[in-house]
Amino acid sequence: MFLSELIPLQQALKIITDTIKPTPLEKTTLENAYKRVIGEDIFSQLDSPPFDRSAMDGYALKAQDTFGSSQQNPAHLTVVDRIGAGHTSPAIIRNGEAVKIATGAPIPQGADAVVMEEYTQEQGDNLKVESSLTPGENISFKGEDIKKEEVIINKGRYLQPQDMAIIASGGYKEVNVHQKPRVGVLITGSELVMPSPNISGAEVINSNHYTIKALVESSMAIPTLSHVEDHAEKVKNKFESILKSHDALITTGGTAISKGDVVVEVSEELGELMFHGVAMRPGKPFAFAIVHDKPVFMLSGYPVAAMVQFDVLVRENLLKLQNLHRPPVLTRKIATRKIPSTLGRTDYIRAKTDGVNVTPLNIKGSTMIHSMVSSNCYIVIEENLEGVAAGENCDVLLYDSMLV
Amino acid sequence: MFLSELIPLQQALKIITDTIKPTPLEKTTLENAYKRVIGEDIFSQLDSPPFDRSAMDGYALKAQDTFGSSQQNPAHLTVVDRIGAGHTSPAIIRNGEAVKIATGAPIPQGADAVVMEEYTQEQGDNLKVESSLTPGENISFKGEDIKKEEVIINKGRYLQPQDMAIIASGGYKEVNVHQKPRVGVLITGSELVMPSPNISGAEVINSNHYTIKALVESSMAIPTLSHVEDHAEKVKNKFESILKSHDALITTGGTAISKGDVVVEVSEELGELMFHGVAMRPGKPFAFAIVHDKPVFMLSGYPVAAMVQFDVLVRENLLKLQNLHRPPVLTRKIATRKIPSTLGRTDYIRAKTDGVNVTPLNIKGSTMIHSMVSSNCYIVIEENLEGVAAGENCDVLLYDSMLV
Repeated sequence: MFLSELIPLQQALKIITDTIKPTPLEKTTLENAYKRVIGEDIFSQLDSPPFDRSAMDGYALKAQDTFGSSQQNPAHLTVVDRIGAGHTSPAIIRNGEAVKIATGAPIPQGADAVVMEEYTQEQGDNLKVESSLTPGENISFKGEDIKKEEVIINKGRYLQPQDMAIIASGGYKEVNVHQKPRVGVLITGSELVMPSPNISGAEVINSNHYTIKALVESSMAIPTLSHVEDHAEKVKNKFESILKSHDALITTGGTAISKGDVVVEVSEELGELMFHGVAMRPGKPFAFAIVHDKPVFMLSGYPVAAMVQFDVLVRENLLKLQNLHRPPVLTRKIATRKIPSTLGRTDYIRAKTDGVNVTPLNIKGSTMIHSMVSSNCYIVIEENLEGVAAGENCDVLLYDSMLV
Repeated sequence: MFLSELIPLQQALKIITDTIKPTPLEKTTLENAYKRVIGEDIFSQLDSPPFDRSAMDGYALKAQDTFGSSQQNPAHLTVVDRIGAGHTSPAIIRNGEAVKIATGAPIPQGADAVVMEEYTQEQGDNLKVESSLTPGENISFKGEDIKKEEVIINKGRYLQPQDMAIIASGGYKEVNVHQKPRVGVLITGSELVMPSPNISGAEVINSNHYTIKALVESSMAIPTLSHVEDHAEKVKNKFESILKSHDALITTGGTAISKGDVVVEVSEELGELMFHGVAMRPGKPFAFAIVHDKPVFMLSGYPVAAMVQFDVLVRENLLKLQNLHRPPVLTRKIATRKIPSTLGRTDYIRAKTDGVNVTPLNIKGSTMIHSMVSSNCYIVIEENLEGVAAGENCDVLLYDSMLV
């Protein structure tokens, strides 16, 4: 494979991103909606609270009965009823009366404030109130938190635990979310075998099987893994069968000598090859095609190159498949040493940052799996830079920042 | 319930943390090990690469045959074999000979370098090499990435996608990880009903059912939800049955007027109540007990208070249950306005930060579910501070930073 025409990284990204359409909506129970992307604006079906309720354990009363009261000069009231949460008192409170009330219980008619239990003393039905209340004190009013018909969650929100509370309070136990993308992962390479302490001859362990599966999961999509030899007809059959039941296809490897790049050729035969080769390092031999109207991401067989290609060219687009817009966010750190780079190529250099400084790892080639484990970020050197000087600020992409 | 003896937050945290023991180990397939905590040091069972292999598509040859070669003055060699990845050439290369080789294929005997395809021209079996190679060039040597017996992953690591590659390359398709904690969640409250657009009388929607489930999931544990009325005998039976099959119990609510705090009383009856009431706001009425040697976290029934209590007192300990040590990490931001606080109490104020400044939301009480959706962090005011002045730096806990 010759990469005579590498396209710039930003152009490659734009070509991919422009083709990505969000998955259809499906109903899910609210119980299973955590980390899903909501497909419509959600309007509350209820006021919340649905009625004026007590914000404290204490006594509902008329505030005016307590004006000027204190520990030295308590107000004296009569307890006419006692209610817990979930119960409503039939009492209509008149001056000099109080109803013992639990947090969350409806305020009885006639009452306009609640005194906290701590500021009272009860003996039989006699109540001493040792503080002065203002009307409305310790009452949560109907609709104070959420008003009926109000939009409580906007379309496109990526649901977090706290969002569950407001959707439930809006009266919903089901919501419409984007389907999780089903992503077929096709690992190609006749030399690949599953892990074992006994590797013979020219066999190579299929580590991409595990890494790409986890990477797809980390992008909130559902992976299905398979493996195929470097054989055009077999690869073609796999393409066809996987694309029938998946929203996208990711391949790794497939460069077989003297037969050309099997995978790229198959994608060209079955659909439209959008580009092959990106001006980046590592990860140059990346290809992207549309086959049967679905995106096909073709990664290197090399574990490190494949991971970088995933992080830079795939993750953001799998998220976009479920309408989640999360382009990578770069931060700036100080380079501890000089890092050369070539004009016209974007470099992703595995590095380690302590939060202030960033140091590139001493590595060579893209075979160095070790470097992915001991690094915690990429230093990103844009194509229009010839490198970074020691002590200079540079762009950094933290691994953790990519996780959603 | 009177909270006459509130204990400081840090003391509460220490009491809990000291009781937490990690779950036992279990074997899992490497395919399912993403986001699990590894239970032992992992030693590589193999060298990686397992043999000297080609790092490029090109030709294996003797470097000395190319010394001084260039486009103007190419070296002339004879191609004696062609091999793809997964194949081994039987050839023993002599001076003037080359073997066409795929990336990843073993270096044939006698060769000590690989020239990239781009710097060659092949016609029949005649090869022109248009660059000068140094011995070792474009070869990945046996054990260069990982040496046999070397520790490749340390005990306690929280497995990320890139870790999969190194474990697979070490020869493993199974690993020992800590069991995911099974967490029973018991929502108490006779007034609670599931979400519906039609809420009658004093009913309250059980939003904690959804929020606490998602919070437990966000802590990498497995929740089982149930609900019970405020009735001591029923709560006691639930405690017993849940603790039989779970590693921890989280309750919400259970404050029933004139009956005391049912849940706390049950915990005291069945086990040891370690404390009740923490000097924090919101979330003061938090209790912690050990029942049948298992931790019981008792949260408020109020959604916002329960979320804050979870974030501050529970999450870190659920992670510790699977041996993952992730105390919350505070950052510093500039307060846009004055925030008063009371000495001796730790405040968690819902707020919104733009990355530089932070603004507390205008809210009152702990009923305000809205505030959790529109905020993205807590401002944390330690117990020994009387507040923060406008323009002053303050501690901030970002919601996103708590997710693992």
